[in-house]
Amino acid sequence: MSNVCLVIGAGDATGGAVARRFAREGYTVCATRRTLDKLEPLLAQIRQGGGVAHGFGSDARNEDDVIALVEHIEANIGPIEVMVFNIGANSPNSILTETARRYTKMWEMACLAGFLTGREVAKRMVSREELAVSGKAHKGTIIFTGASASLRGSAHFAGFSGGKMALRSLAQSMARELGPMGIHVAHTIIDGAIDTEFIRTQFPQRYALKDEGGILNPDHIADAYWMLHQQPRDAWTHELDLRPYMEKF
Amino acid sequence: MSNVCLVIGAGDATGGAVARRFAREGYTVCATRRTLDKLEPLLAQIRQGGGVAHGFGSDARNEDDVIALVEHIEANIGPIEVMVFNIGANSPNSILTETARRYTKMWEMACLAGFLTGREVAKRMVSREELAVSGKAHKGTIIFTGASASLRGSAHFAGFSGGKMALRSLAQSMARELGPMGIHVAHTIIDGAIDTEFIRTQFPQRYALKDEGGILNPDHIADAYWMLHQQPRDAWTHELDLRPYMEKF
Amino acid sequence: MSNVCLVIGAGDATGGAVARRFAREGYTVCATRRTLDKLEPLLAQIRQGGGVAHGFGSDARNEDDVIALVEHIEANIGPIEVMVFNIGANSPNSILTETARRYTKMWEMACLAGFLTGREVAKRMVSREELAVSGKAHKGTIIFTGASASLRGSAHFAGFSGGKMALRSLAQSMARELGPMGIHVAHTIIDGAIDTEFIRTQFPQRYALKDEGGILNPDHIADAYWMLHQQPRDAWTHELDLRPYMEKF
Amino acid sequence: MSNVCLVIGAGDATGGAVARRFAREGYTVCATRRTLDKLEPLLAQIRQGGGVAHGFGSDARNEDDVIALVEHIEANIGPIEVMVFNIGANSPNSILTETARRYTKMWEMACLAGFLTGREVAKRMVSREELAVSGKAHKGTIIFTGASASLRGSAHFAGFSGGKMALRSLAQSMARELGPMGIHVAHTIIDGAIDTEFIRTQFPQRYALKDEGGILNPDHIADAYWMLHQQPRDAWTHELDLRPYMEKF
Repeated sequence: MSNVCLVIGAGDATGGAVARRFAREGYTVCATRRTLDKLEPLLAQIRQGGGVAHGFGSDARNEDDVIALVEHIEANIGPIEVMVFNIGANSPNSILTETARRYTKMWEMACLAGFLTGREVAKRMVSREELAVSGKAHKGTIIFTGASASLRGSAHFAGFSGGKMALRSLAQSMARELGPMGIHVAHTIIDGAIDTEFIRTQFPQRYALKDEGGILNPDHIADAYWMLHQQPRDAWTHELDLRPYMEKF
Repeated sequence: MSNVCLVIGAGDATGGAVARRFAREGYTVCATRRTLDKLEPLLAQIRQGGGVAHGFGSDARNEDDVIALVEHIEANIGPIEVMVFNIGANSPNSILTETARRYTKMWEMACLAGFLTGREVAKRMVSREELAVSGKAHKGTIIFTGASASLRGSAHFAGFSGGKMALRSLAQSMARELGPMGIHVAHTIIDGAIDTEFIRTQFPQRYALKDEGGILNPDHIADAYWMLHQQPRDAWTHELDLRPYMEKF
Repeated sequence: MSNVCLVIGAGDATGGAVARRFAREGYTVCATRRTLDKLEPLLAQIRQGGGVAHGFGSDARNEDDVIALVEHIEANIGPIEVMVFNIGANSPNSILTETARRYTKMWEMACLAGFLTGREVAKRMVSREELAVSGKAHKGTIIFTGASASLRGSAHFAGFSGGKMALRSLAQSMARELGPMGIHVAHTIIDGAIDTEFIRTQFPQRYALKDEGGILNPDHIADAYWMLHQQPRDAWTHELDLRPYMEKF
Repeated sequence: MSNVCLVIGAGDATGGAVARRFAREGYTVCATRRTLDKLEPLLAQIRQGGGVAHGFGSDARNEDDVIALVEHIEANIGPIEVMVFNIGANSPNSILTETARRYTKMWEMACLAGFLTGREVAKRMVSREELAVSGKAHKGTIIFTGASASLRGSAHFAGFSGGKMALRSLAQSMARELGPMGIHVAHTIIDGAIDTEFIRTQFPQRYALKDEGGILNPDHIADAYWMLHQQPRDAWTHELDLRPYMEKF
């Protein structure tokens, strides 16, 4: 029974790349999206490469779903050694026309889902022996994906930024509590456009910079996440920013 | 019909002091708490001092309540020139035992309620003429009360800090969008114990520092809020920290 | 013998306005510039208004000058109750062509001068009884003037930002050490153009926004500094940002 | 003629470890300290491991020294592909007794030396073709070593923190200007005790935590620096924190 890398929100480019990367390193990948169907191409890709992958249609904002998911994986698949939280949707709006429904939904996706999955996974990690995998002494790694909106609230970004800043707060609080217990909690700042279908179709001018390195390659983000998990416990990174060399910041 | 200072969450020491301060300056005070009864002492105090005060039992997390409240005030009492948002409750917990209910409630109180009241009030402010009150050219002031938890997520403070960091993000986003429209949006960092019954009974050692200036006097916080509202529009403060001189930070 | 407000760098609009403000409140003003002659108009202005003002040609980067200045004032004029540090010059350059001389000079003006004057004044403040002036219990106020460059190093601003970020560090360190001793150390972020001859002639488009409140009125900055000095010790502000309502941030 | 990794301040554990790491990867190492003699053990170590290393007695605060050093290396040894700046000395003092000499020296070591070496190296990097080394398209990497004092000015740390915050400002300014030109400028926050002779003898209780991972292993810091240099240009990290899992932050 090999150890598990759980990717919450494997729908976009980053989550998929992370899943492939950890599968390639020998982890059993458990990937979630709200709709299981949409996970199939990723699962097939991993399996074709010789990896082991399980897909779950699961809403990470639903507490019962999350509890059942983590319980099932730990009971039937393997101990979760790494969890990558990768959910978040941005719908920019003027504060004057923003609705409570949208505002709340952005927080639920970016933050509440991170709390629920982070808590359930952390509970399992603290209560077991240290992992011997890769010669490391720690008990597991939890990575939350952030954005430049995690650092500041820009005009028209109240909802997205509110969720992302709350997620960053969660990552800090968990790192401060769980770090000394041996759980590596990290937060990333992905500052720039990622190579996705969305950017390709909606921001063609930006996408045109791809060959020059102007947009983030998801595989390179995945490399950074793998690196974070590999860090020995005397030299952990809590917050890692990643941006194209030409990005303004 | 004099202009209105709306205090959302006039239950604790700070909200009450702000209400008294603005009443003394001639504003009609509208104060809210979830339970109207508990507002009576404050309302009586203001009226005895010759001020005008209206109390409202209102849950600021409830969108319908908030819309009705602001509509009622603007239609029947006067234009809201100042809004002070002052809600937030801290219930420290390990991330391992924190419940979704408590975590969500802290965000709803600290942040969602701020969004709902801020949006409703801002809508009214932008759509009217500039205020002539006090010779100022701006259209109104919105102040959100923060804490040191607004700046960082400490161990066991995931819920409170998550709500407070999201509120700070809201204040930044609103200031960046609404400032150029003439609405002064400010955020305060109240860093230290406030002179309240809670501190007196639960932290007597801290309370004993009162005469030395070791805990914040709510009237001094109210002075700072009054000052923020008085700032001319060429020199607005967005974020103001307030702490006792002996406080570690 | 009335108490002294010492303004280091009373050359630009802000320093002059602060000097006039404190003179109006009854303080004996001691104002410095590198060249005494240039101070004369300010001194005359204060005296015409019935105030007391002394001018000093003094280079705040020169340790001997600073020691002699503070010694002279304390021995012959009065105890320094307030010190406002207001020096700093910005000369933007590419890092590729910046010279060591300019880079060092910007640090000396923005930071070393602040260290020298701050230390000398703080030494006097800590060693005397609490001030009874204005009913306050604290021993004095030291205010350092910062800018948006105090928060981040932008392209071509390495020298100015380096000095300003180091000055902010100084203000934080002094506040943390000296606050509990009764000295109020504050740092301001002046984020925007100030109404000066320089802006009028060099940035006419910006200056044209003056009547709309698009540039900072030095008198309003001085009001904020006066307010900082008036704060009771249970509710001190360490960092205060001031910007025009229409300024991007 | 292989490419060069220049380590400014290879005296402490971190600089030495970085030098050994890049030597092992095939880089010609150029290492500096103020005293050449003290470099000999490191140079011998690298040579015994089959690496190529040159030592220089050079004061990085001296502009002529720095210009001559970089000129000599580029003319006679090889193009500098990586520069790691690693100088900084902390001498905690009360602001009331801090001397101008010490305060200035801390800035010169932590910041001015970083400016001089960073500028000289950057000048060479921008003016040449992109490096083909390792298949990367960028023109070079410059890493500045920071500390927790780079983020805040604590009591009694005015000098060290002032230098470190100014260095961080330099790193930000250089990254924003030089990043789009293809130079990767990064800043690290080393937050915790490093495994050095100094910690072993002066902080034995802290040193006792070594086997538990309570102090940073310089080789792990070097791994992180190597990783930074390896990042593809679409996913660069500007600021990387490293701390032991049990460190408070």
